[in-house]
Amino acid sequence: VKRVLVTGANGFVGRHCLAPLAAAGFEVHAISRAGTGPDGPCWHRADLLDSAAVSALVDAVRPTHLLHLAWYTTHRLFWTAPENLAWVRGSLALVEAFARADGRRAVLAGTCAEYDPRFGFCSEGVTPLAPATLYGTSKHALHLVAEAFASGNGVSLAWARLFFLYGPGEPAGRFVPAVVAALLRGEPALLTHGNQVRDFLAVGDVADALVALLDSPVEGPVNVASGVPTSLRDLATSLAGRLGRPDLLRFGAVPAPPGESPFLVADVRRLKEEVAWSPRRDPNEGPDATVAWWKARLAEEPTP
Amino acid sequence: VKRVLVTGANGFVGRHCLAPLAAAGFEVHAISRAGTGPDGPCWHRADLLDSAAVSALVDAVRPTHLLHLAWYTTHRLFWTAPENLAWVRGSLALVEAFARADGRRAVLAGTCAEYDPRFGFCSEGVTPLAPATLYGTSKHALHLVAEAFASGNGVSLAWARLFFLYGPGEPAGRFVPAVVAALLRGEPALLTHGNQVRDFLAVGDVADALVALLDSPVEGPVNVASGVPTSLRDLATSLAGRLGRPDLLRFGAVPAPPGESPFLVADVRRLKEEVAWSPRRDPNEGPDATVAWWKARLAEEPTP
Repeated sequence: VKRVLVTGANGFVGRHCLAPLAAAGFEVHAISRAGTGPDGPCWHRADLLDSAAVSALVDAVRPTHLLHLAWYTTHRLFWTAPENLAWVRGSLALVEAFARADGRRAVLAGTCAEYDPRFGFCSEGVTPLAPATLYGTSKHALHLVAEAFASGNGVSLAWARLFFLYGPGEPAGRFVPAVVAALLRGEPALLTHGNQVRDFLAVGDVADALVALLDSPVEGPVNVASGVPTSLRDLATSLAGRLGRPDLLRFGAVPAPPGESPFLVADVRRLKEEVAWSPRRDPNEGPDATVAWWKARLAEEPTP
Repeated sequence: VKRVLVTGANGFVGRHCLAPLAAAGFEVHAISRAGTGPDGPCWHRADLLDSAAVSALVDAVRPTHLLHLAWYTTHRLFWTAPENLAWVRGSLALVEAFARADGRRAVLAGTCAEYDPRFGFCSEGVTPLAPATLYGTSKHALHLVAEAFASGNGVSLAWARLFFLYGPGEPAGRFVPAVVAALLRGEPALLTHGNQVRDFLAVGDVADALVALLDSPVEGPVNVASGVPTSLRDLATSLAGRLGRPDLLRFGAVPAPPGESPFLVADVRRLKEEVAWSPRRDPNEGPDATVAWWKARLAEEPTP
């Protein structure tokens, strides 16, 4: 039996992993702070920063697989928040408990923010790792220790570096939700020049890729991304086109942050060739689903 | 007076530089093996690999500016040809003669092939230089010596790293000419998967940028490119659309070379911010002019 313990299961990425995990034949055990979530998995309540509780839960569930997505993610604050240290400690305790309970295979969420941002194109074995933020540094440090520990303790571990995601359930305030919400309200979206090139992947595809990685024997860092360079301008224009309001996009209305990377794109050869995963969805599905989700959500808001 | 000596003036890039040089107020002296070329500049016949002849010519013209574009460029062969050594030697003799004749400002053509191709995103001060070919290594070596020599000998030198160019006059056999020629003949264009991302700039824009760089005080390496990532698939599809024959594109018909870079794109912040140059042409003009040029050219061919 393949029994997976999923952390962050109620989060932006975690929610989208539940169905593909079940479809891949996993018995799914999900952790959330409330102990509840969408139907399907077996839900458990646990505070992941309480290592005694985590250890007891792992001993009770005895998962063969671990998909660790939980972290401190409050928009903007997460880059520098001291909570990053607590999540390094909590994650290490989780990995240790998982190994002690004879867990075999773990995938942990890393980030493109581990790479030295000056290099722009991020290739797992090539691009230097030199995170510019506490968040990126904390993830990088966790990877180093978790990988060294896993290899000596019978756990096969892959480290999934996530890039830019968007889709249903994305926290408000981030780029895509901010653009879509403004346009749905008929307000102008105030943007920078928009020529920044990023690597976007719809969250449903990210979830599929994570499940494929978990179900594979591939170890070490693996970029989970599209490999397709997209400018913020093109993404915003595509969303505005779907909403019929390209007139509301105001490129150049606000200055870009100084020192911002012009370019952040993933090398996806490991994901494509070793994990043998490529997006199966129609490329229109991600933007369409995003727009539909925000339409439904904003319709629920009381009008002032 | 600004008096420029242009080498490779009859070549793919050089030809396009002549009008913008004149428009920028340069008295233009052009070198070709035949000693002739398009109307406008003053043409000189010289073999650039004959250093005595080059020295005599430079002494006679006494250029204030040098735009050195000539090199051995025979399609495919240039990567490994021993001629690369002759062009390093000839180029060094040219720079030396230019400095001795009180030349003040030189721009020499370098290449994206100087960068370590594994890094994908090429930023002048960041990305390691580790050319994988004799051509890239020869250009890199020329840059090192020419820059060190120039700075001690009163010459302001910029090194223009060219990326992927296309447009009227491009040598047959290269990617764009091969696709356009096949489609114009009504034959299928046999292509690899086409997902390789490259940095393309229309040759007319490349020429404008080189002239702007020559006419600026910016020194050292400067990428001359668009900064816009474009897949071979998208470029071929855009050309095929203009020719009404997207049905003739056969992606995946031939295997991609093993070890080929998935990604080669330039950081263009130096060009944009320090040289203050951006393309002024309509983005459709490059592909339109390319298609028109090949149409006219193939119409001249005798039918078998």
